Amino acid sequence: MKTNATFYHAGCPVCVSAEQSITSVLDREKVDLEVVHLGDQPGRVGEAEDAGVESVPALVLGGETLHLNFGAALADLK
Amino acid sequence: MKTNATFYHAGCPVCVSAEQSITSVLDREKVDLEVVHLGDQPGRVGEAEDAGVESVPALVLGGETLHLNFGAALADLK
Repeated sequence: MKTNATFYHAGCPVCVSAEQSITSVLDREKVDLEVVHLGDQPGRVGEAEDAGVESVPALVLGGETLHLNFGAALADLK
Repeated sequence: MKTNATFYHAGCPVCVSAEQSITSVLDREKVDLEVVHLGDQPGRVGEAEDAGVESVPALVLGGETLHLNFGAALADLK
């Protein structure tokens, strides 16, 4: 069974760089990846918060939320 | 050509959790992964610093350093 992964970002340079690095090495046989730009999809900020995302870029992987470096606080995207 | 990846940690709960999540989904066809416990190998703290690691857990992926959540500051491991 594949693990669901959601990469939340906001188009910031730190976000783009982290996205390129991490998504290029994920095993797509194991991971079903969705990339969500919270600037373009502000309606999904609540869902990110519920998953424990405090800043972007962040990767929600299965049940775990991994903050990758720091681009912007989620609060600044509301 | 494989990307070299080094996961630096210090055995903390945040580290172990992040390690399990991220290493389980890396594509081993693309990534040559080494896991370094800086508590056990303090001689490698300098190398981590040189790669831009400020806290653990961190994944140095090719030329980029990704801090994954926050377990401990590198300064506390010296």
